[in-house]
Amino acid sequence: MQGVMMRGAGNPVVEERPEPTIERPTDAVVRIVAACVCGSDLWPYRGQEAADDLPMGHEYVAQIIEVGADVTTVAPGDYVVGSFVISCGTCDICRAGYQSRCVHAQFVHGSIGVQAQRARIPYADGTLVKLPGKPDDDLLPSLLAASDVLGTGWFAADAAGAGPGKTIAVVGDGAVGLLGVLAAKQLGSERIIISSRHAGRQAMARTFGATDVIEERGDAAVAKIKEMTGGLGAHGVIEAVGTQQSMMQAIGSARPGGSIGYVGVSHGVNLPGDQLFFSLVHLHGGPAPVRRYLPDLVDRILRREINPGLVFDRDLPLSEAPEAYRLMSDREAIKVLLRP
Amino acid sequence: MQGVMMRGAGNPVVEERPEPTIERPTDAVVRIVAACVCGSDLWPYRGQEAADDLPMGHEYVAQIIEVGADVTTVAPGDYVVGSFVISCGTCDICRAGYQSRCVHAQFVHGSIGVQAQRARIPYADGTLVKLPGKPDDDLLPSLLAASDVLGTGWFAADAAGAGPGKTIAVVGDGAVGLLGVLAAKQLGSERIIISSRHAGRQAMARTFGATDVIEERGDAAVAKIKEMTGGLGAHGVIEAVGTQQSMMQAIGSARPGGSIGYVGVSHGVNLPGDQLFFSLVHLHGGPAPVRRYLPDLVDRILRREINPGLVFDRDLPLSEAPEAYRLMSDREAIKVLLRP
Repeated sequence: MQGVMMRGAGNPVVEERPEPTIERPTDAVVRIVAACVCGSDLWPYRGQEAADDLPMGHEYVAQIIEVGADVTTVAPGDYVVGSFVISCGTCDICRAGYQSRCVHAQFVHGSIGVQAQRARIPYADGTLVKLPGKPDDDLLPSLLAASDVLGTGWFAADAAGAGPGKTIAVVGDGAVGLLGVLAAKQLGSERIIISSRHAGRQAMARTFGATDVIEERGDAAVAKIKEMTGGLGAHGVIEAVGTQQSMMQAIGSARPGGSIGYVGVSHGVNLPGDQLFFSLVHLHGGPAPVRRYLPDLVDRILRREINPGLVFDRDLPLSEAPEAYRLMSDREAIKVLLRP
Repeated sequence: MQGVMMRGAGNPVVEERPEPTIERPTDAVVRIVAACVCGSDLWPYRGQEAADDLPMGHEYVAQIIEVGADVTTVAPGDYVVGSFVISCGTCDICRAGYQSRCVHAQFVHGSIGVQAQRARIPYADGTLVKLPGKPDDDLLPSLLAASDVLGTGWFAADAAGAGPGKTIAVVGDGAVGLLGVLAAKQLGSERIIISSRHAGRQAMARTFGATDVIEERGDAAVAKIKEMTGGLGAHGVIEAVGTQQSMMQAIGSARPGGSIGYVGVSHGVNLPGDQLFFSLVHLHGGPAPVRRYLPDLVDRILRREINPGLVFDRDLPLSEAPEAYRLMSDREAIKVLLRP
């Protein structure tokens, strides 16, 4: 079957990969209906992470081809959405809602790779969420977004304490930041301020519920947000970049006692203990336990209450995956859907 | 009046200081009934923080001498306990329960200094909690503990998510760590594991509710706690030291999704972003908003449900403050009460 391998920085290759098969009784083999390129895929693409021989892709809507003997919640023919981390669903960590650190956790990125025609999904019962039937074509992008970027933005908004009466600042205008705006809005936040200098992303942020767009970054953004909040800072901040500057902007933008939900994969970040200490903020983040939120997110999408699929501004066949990476790396596209 | 000034590292001096007076209508002038030396006072004492000309002492039980025209909740003659941070009680930050970062916050340490006979307390209504009458002598140490170490340990236990069914690890066997044990127990935790190599502190920890004492530190402590918790780590960790090793021990000891309440004043700490990210923990801490907890803590003490005053293993006159510092710095005493 065809699938994308990262063969060194800047070199995603669509090539023949081994046909997946059931290896354990808890596995499913699926046909990938839709996959996509994630902002985090750009780290290896740009050589900022190891990029040799990585099976790429971790977001997927799929149809079950075959299941192992122990799989009970999905069956051949079912349509499913899965999380970007394999999780058993039964360990103490999963049951507490932190499936992305399941004791059997496995990142789909770099090991399975779902920018491909087919894939083996371990722990199918704990990882996949069954859809009620074949999804309407126009809902496919939104369901695909739920697999990572929506679920991740939602987790960040939750960790940031988004809710009625709250002012939430968002650092990062990629798909996750934009869907953090959507999540903060859906959770009832009163005011949502996003940092963005890109007209198209600013417009999309407003569509998703942003009340304010600022163009400042770093310390200037901190000063601006304090000015907008009576000198106090935001109640909560969604951090969706992963750099030293974005983390310090997030910590600086929150009021004392405020909360930061950080989901930008951390690269080269060192948090000064004394600054963090005296900020008195709550800090929670990491690889989002998307599986916790997936059933609710799927329901909201199927009821057409939210349209996170808007973040996909390009749609290409899998064979054009290299172009998809280029479009995202050059910020010509927010997010590119890939059809195997 | 007499008061303690730090006159350079290792040199706390009991000397004549200016008599406090009402300066603003929200002030109170109080007679210090009992004060003490805090573990955090040892940072300047040991030269690990600026130590020139600092008014020392931030924990106090006191009696009101005089109040400003706008003070309504306390009157001359009243006995009070105050927090180690001045807070107005009315700003948005105070009302959200983060009084230690009140917009008018002022650390009593280094500015007022209550290792003294008398003191001016700004924002008396927002800072002080009135006692129902003259406290029984035997309750004085416990009420004094509430002013910082108990309130700080309680905040840490709260931030660590202490509660029924929870396993809480405690890093640090000073007064705050020990009272973190007490708090974790009072909040209903099932298992409380403290790291300590000191027989007296181990015994006190058990008195306060520790179920397990381990002697390991750093990575060895992390391995031990994982071994004791089925490989997962503690649900919550109380960090009460403030060093790189103690913070990394705390982060490493918590399970994914777990919570760290850190209250050791951060010195030279740099948290590696990637390790924090993948840990998926909640991190909350800083200068404890003791004022939030004080009314409840005072009630528990007056009802004799808790006896945090046990951490005071020495009781000296104010004139012997230099010896009090030495005893604590040499770990010959856990905490020394000072009577002006």
